[in-house]
Amino acid sequence: MKKVKAYKDLSIEELKALKEELELRFDEVKAKRLNLDMSRGKPSAAQLDLAMGMMDVLNSEASLMCEEGVDCRNYGVLDGIREAKQLLADMMEVPKDNIVIFGNSTLNIMYDTIARSMTHGVMGSTPWCKLDKVKFLCPVPGYDRHFAITEHFGIEMINVPMTLDGPDMDMVEALVSSDDSIKGIWCVPKYSNPQGITYSDRTVQRFARLKPAAKDFRIFWDNAYGIHHLYEEKQDWLPEILMQCKMEGNPDMVYKFTSTSKVSFPGSGLAAMAASKANLVAIREQMKIQTIGHDKVNQLRHARFYGDIHGMVEHMKKHADILRPKFETVLSVLERELGGLEIGSWLEPRGGYFISFDALEGCAKAIVAKAKEAGLIMTGAGATFPYGKDPKDSNIRIAPSYPTPEELAVAADIFVLSVKLVSIDKILKEKTA
Amino acid sequence: MKKVKAYKDLSIEELKALKEELELRFDEVKAKRLNLDMSRGKPSAAQLDLAMGMMDVLNSEASLMCEEGVDCRNYGVLDGIREAKQLLADMMEVPKDNIVIFGNSTLNIMYDTIARSMTHGVMGSTPWCKLDKVKFLCPVPGYDRHFAITEHFGIEMINVPMTLDGPDMDMVEALVSSDDSIKGIWCVPKYSNPQGITYSDRTVQRFARLKPAAKDFRIFWDNAYGIHHLYEEKQDWLPEILMQCKMEGNPDMVYKFTSTSKVSFPGSGLAAMAASKANLVAIREQMKIQTIGHDKVNQLRHARFYGDIHGMVEHMKKHADILRPKFETVLSVLERELGGLEIGSWLEPRGGYFISFDALEGCAKAIVAKAKEAGLIMTGAGATFPYGKDPKDSNIRIAPSYPTPEELAVAADIFVLSVKLVSIDKILKEKTA
Repeated sequence: MKKVKAYKDLSIEELKALKEELELRFDEVKAKRLNLDMSRGKPSAAQLDLAMGMMDVLNSEASLMCEEGVDCRNYGVLDGIREAKQLLADMMEVPKDNIVIFGNSTLNIMYDTIARSMTHGVMGSTPWCKLDKVKFLCPVPGYDRHFAITEHFGIEMINVPMTLDGPDMDMVEALVSSDDSIKGIWCVPKYSNPQGITYSDRTVQRFARLKPAAKDFRIFWDNAYGIHHLYEEKQDWLPEILMQCKMEGNPDMVYKFTSTSKVSFPGSGLAAMAASKANLVAIREQMKIQTIGHDKVNQLRHARFYGDIHGMVEHMKKHADILRPKFETVLSVLERELGGLEIGSWLEPRGGYFISFDALEGCAKAIVAKAKEAGLIMTGAGATFPYGKDPKDSNIRIAPSYPTPEELAVAADIFVLSVKLVSIDKILKEKTA
Repeated sequence: MKKVKAYKDLSIEELKALKEELELRFDEVKAKRLNLDMSRGKPSAAQLDLAMGMMDVLNSEASLMCEEGVDCRNYGVLDGIREAKQLLADMMEVPKDNIVIFGNSTLNIMYDTIARSMTHGVMGSTPWCKLDKVKFLCPVPGYDRHFAITEHFGIEMINVPMTLDGPDMDMVEALVSSDDSIKGIWCVPKYSNPQGITYSDRTVQRFARLKPAAKDFRIFWDNAYGIHHLYEEKQDWLPEILMQCKMEGNPDMVYKFTSTSKVSFPGSGLAAMAASKANLVAIREQMKIQTIGHDKVNQLRHARFYGDIHGMVEHMKKHADILRPKFETVLSVLERELGGLEIGSWLEPRGGYFISFDALEGCAKAIVAKAKEAGLIMTGAGATFPYGKDPKDSNIRIAPSYPTPEELAVAADIFVLSVKLVSIDKILKEKTA
């Protein structure tokens, strides 16, 4: 067992000596003028190569007729061709009649869902733009682009702390049942962004049992990482929310989203929404005004490439083989360099795209800035909170997917160096105050 | 010269005899239980085949790096890759800095543009949803899906009659300059839907010189058929509206839209908007909340397949070769069967996708219903007017693109038979009243 002393237990002299030593090492790295990026959950080139076969599936000799006999090259089919619906329905673990395929991005679907609620309400409710106040619950830390949507529409965001079982459900229940201006909650229920937490069975059940004061309250269930495991034998399981809500007599309370952005190609994949039939009837009413239909050729390309959900699951194992060592590299550097120092904590996710790091209070911004000095771009501190404001200035999202393994080892070293230096400054300041 | 007598000049007996004869012919056609569709502007399979080479342009061996060095398979590039922007900018006759590429559909862009104006206003103006009244001018006959968008948002639509030079500009000028609740006008300026009229140079100039009472008034310039000529040597020309507006000191007054839906594949093409830089700055502010980016792989596929605008122009000649005989078939049947009868009028478009037919007042619905009896689906009568209400019940849109030439000859025959029968009924009724 490694013998380490927590930084807070070091003397001022020890801290100063350590700082000097670490600064030398930091300057060495800085001198390399590196350019590394751990800021966004982007797949690496090696992962994208996995789906290149998709480029050959449809060639000029291929028939572009889909199962229902429609020429995918022409207009028609509002909400997705049958074989693509089957594939995405299986991916979402729902019947295919409960899904609608949209364009290339769940972000776009979620934005449009809120935009529609603003101008037309939800299944006949008052348009949100006509209300004095609309609020959303935001489990934190969470996904910055979710929060950006609600902020864009002037929706007030209320932080709800995450626990290891998901959002604090006592708080969610109390708020949702008492305040009818609360219209929704952002959830990434599996391998959450950024913590990699999967909501517990009990949390999902409590979601399904919510008794919202607002009839037009919806759970925005962004299951972005539903099949994005890192370990074949050590994966997380999540109860299917549509069925849970149906069982609890709340069939219309949830919108579920997923995409193949991190299965095939980000920006050139398929995105879908799953919901009750009543929700989908209302949504199609608006959808048919907005579009004649989305890209069926790309739907067909995906369906033919993966064949079925088993093909997709097998494909995801290849992603895992590329991602797993990257996560393990970062986690082992964190453990080796920061374990026992009591200047930060993190979780070990079993899937998804992120590692969430909690620094000492008041240190996150400084750590991200420090890392940048040495050429490492991290997600901006605060980004994981509504309005970009982390009340403790503590959370940092680490995205290990994009850099090569070699880059990643260097990047992780820069990160821990930055954490150490900033933490020492804070502790020194406290000790000398 | 054919000697024909106008129906109105026939005696009651002549009309009754003619009706009997036509009814026999109609019953013969009806007995064939045909299933023909002239309802929508869908390209035919032969036209779609023209672009099948696009399926081979990107294969698993191809580099998917675009000119600016971005991997098109990954996230990034909000508003379009450079080579696709160049292609669509040339198609739209504007500088490439004045365009943004969106997804697969201009309808979707136009919908989103109105939705954004509803919730966020236009370049800082009051959101339209906060106003008591918002109105749009609708040149009629026009495109049903335009009208559906404004109707969906509760925007009051005001009919403006079309002339052979475009919308009645006296009326447009008077309304736009006096009523600040008028926020926009729908235009299909070239080979208009459904009449195939191209706005005159003077009309475009008058548009550019508008002095709107509302600062957030925008011309929605849907140049859907900009390069969709039927005749190489007999094409229409249209002044470029962005430049005209700039020259007149109204640079921000217009949004221009186009897509490759009827160039490559409907639903799997590219759609773009052109506007002043100030407009695009405001639009990108919202766009970056809604999406990380659209399908760059498809953008690259289009750019590589067409090469440049010349390649696209050459491609459009092949479309014309397929469409021209279809238009000529319908027009020759109309002329042969209805010329001189004074029971309908039509124009001979030089491009676009439609022929517009004006029946005797009060006859359009009945003609469409009659055609349906014999298995011919036409666009619903009234569809070319806001709220589906043609005040004269006169206009019928004919879409000759989708059927084969053989089907089209039969379809045209059914149509003229239906026109004759319904018109005789009307005239008989008037004569015997």
